[in-house]
Amino acid sequence: MSPFRSLDALHDACTSLTAADPSSIAMLVRQDAQLTKPAGSLGRLEDIVKWFGAWRPLAIARAEICLFAGNHGVLAQGVSAWPASVTEAMIRNFRQGGAAINQLAREVDAGLRVVELASLTPSADMTLAPALTEAEFLRAVSTGYDSVSPQCDLLALGEMGVGNTTAAAALAAALFGGDGQTWAGRGAGLDDAGVQRKANAIDRALSLHGRDHSPLALARHYGGWELAALLGATLAARHQRIPVLLDGFVVTAAVAPLALLDPTALDHTMLGHCSHEQGHRHLAARLGLTPLLDLSLRLGEGSGAALAIPLVRAALACHNGMARFDDLAIDDQNNRPIKS
Amino acid sequence: MSPFRSLDALHDACTSLTAADPSSIAMLVRQDAQLTKPAGSLGRLEDIVKWFGAWRPLAIARAEICLFAGNHGVLAQGVSAWPASVTEAMIRNFRQGGAAINQLAREVDAGLRVVELASLTPSADMTLAPALTEAEFLRAVSTGYDSVSPQCDLLALGEMGVGNTTAAAALAAALFGGDGQTWAGRGAGLDDAGVQRKANAIDRALSLHGRDHSPLALARHYGGWELAALLGATLAARHQRIPVLLDGFVVTAAVAPLALLDPTALDHTMLGHCSHEQGHRHLAARLGLTPLLDLSLRLGEGSGAALAIPLVRAALACHNGMARFDDLAIDDQNNRPIKS
Repeated sequence: MSPFRSLDALHDACTSLTAADPSSIAMLVRQDAQLTKPAGSLGRLEDIVKWFGAWRPLAIARAEICLFAGNHGVLAQGVSAWPASVTEAMIRNFRQGGAAINQLAREVDAGLRVVELASLTPSADMTLAPALTEAEFLRAVSTGYDSVSPQCDLLALGEMGVGNTTAAAALAAALFGGDGQTWAGRGAGLDDAGVQRKANAIDRALSLHGRDHSPLALARHYGGWELAALLGATLAARHQRIPVLLDGFVVTAAVAPLALLDPTALDHTMLGHCSHEQGHRHLAARLGLTPLLDLSLRLGEGSGAALAIPLVRAALACHNGMARFDDLAIDDQNNRPIKS
Repeated sequence: MSPFRSLDALHDACTSLTAADPSSIAMLVRQDAQLTKPAGSLGRLEDIVKWFGAWRPLAIARAEICLFAGNHGVLAQGVSAWPASVTEAMIRNFRQGGAAINQLAREVDAGLRVVELASLTPSADMTLAPALTEAEFLRAVSTGYDSVSPQCDLLALGEMGVGNTTAAAALAAALFGGDGQTWAGRGAGLDDAGVQRKANAIDRALSLHGRDHSPLALARHYGGWELAALLGATLAARHQRIPVLLDGFVVTAAVAPLALLDPTALDHTMLGHCSHEQGHRHLAARLGLTPLLDLSLRLGEGSGAALAIPLVRAALACHNGMARFDDLAIDDQNNRPIKS
């Protein structure tokens, strides 16, 4: 049964969010000060601990990568170097264990769930009509929402969908201003003429639908299937207090509407990776997200989020496993050994 | 038996280096082009594959973190927030499994070897005399050289030594120009006055010893015990074709003399992490090293190098495990499916 039967119900779910636990954070900060290291010397690993601990206990029994796949009608505008059939071929690849994300999931000891939206039926071409009807949008969000396992302690989000950087760029433009030129990048290998076609398609969609809609309606007009599912999954994770690692440009654009509905809506997320895709760095900055990794990946599939999983595990392991200064008879206040 | 009985013998070893294998790299590039991903979309993971494969087959049966510890006479100049006894306390912590690097080693499935230099007897105070005599320097380099296990497929280097960012900063200044102010940072928690004392100590050492020595002699005058050992370990890894992950400012400064003796000398290394310590980014750039991670760590212990180990494993796993385009019946040349 779909959890969201109306945009109003979804809007309510997006604006009644469970909050980070300030007492947990305060306790973690006190504990951190006792660990056998100079204060602050573990840098962003310390940030990860506070972030994770604000939502749930510092333990990862199961990490999961959830990868949403869909096709895009806007592909008819010549916005990708690849045909739509590649989405299906890559799904086959995921099922057979041959894609990059399969190797990464195994390496980082995470489960991998691949969810096809609408049996890969393309969304409408956003240059001609809203990408999704309201019913389709709610169905996709609900599918994403229901895909999050309550057994999961850390969720990494990914996507596959030929043409979806066009959808992401259009949605970013609709949400944050700018035009096709501002947000269109090379995606999975466009040449200059292709990037121009992509920017033009985005501009036509912006002219047709405008920006004068709620963030959720903008997601419906511009985003397409898997972007809607990513929004739903991120919302479900928040309701279940599951920390989320975001991936590249498409995932970040997909969840951006949540942040416009509630400025704390992405507080349970960290950005795993800054994509090489033009616009991602700018979009991340607009959302106040600082990536953990910056490795020039531009693959999608959740690859950047997956690669950040070991960093989260490492941060938790340090906090949980390190000795304290009094175990070593070092007094961190005076920086002198207690017993010399 | 010490492998290096004279500076000349060591100099010879530093200038007769085994080379990267260009035919391996060419083969890896050809293989990469067939993998089911857009060309270049795995970014630096692809660089890691070419780097690693230039030295040995793409498999990591055993990764090892080798951590060298020593004490520094220059501590008498008030250059650290911590007393020398903390070096010994931290060694105890390493042995008992309570330090950050113990947790990280377990998380990244790497062995951890801790090597104390000279039983933690401090080097001479470089503001008064060369940090090490020639015999001491050769002994430390030899210890580092002998610490590299031939069973190891990937070596991450780390260090512990109260005062050693002063040694590293002085060595960087001696090798690359600039003065104390250029290279002195906060280390493990210095206040402004402490940083000033540190810069002054470096300037006094530079006045005393000058820069008019060979790179190895500069390492001896300014570097101290564990820095010499790090140089030796990096050299040994090269001779054994073991890829090396460098850690922060101290490790990078320690191996810099090798690059001045042979511009290819660090080709078997990658920089795991850019430290928060002032000067590391600049030093890395001087050496042409681009860090894999940038997480504001400033702990040492090999923490930044250890955190990069999963990235190397992930890169190799992708290259070794991914399906090829012809497995999926996608023609990457035309970007069209072979069978539609």
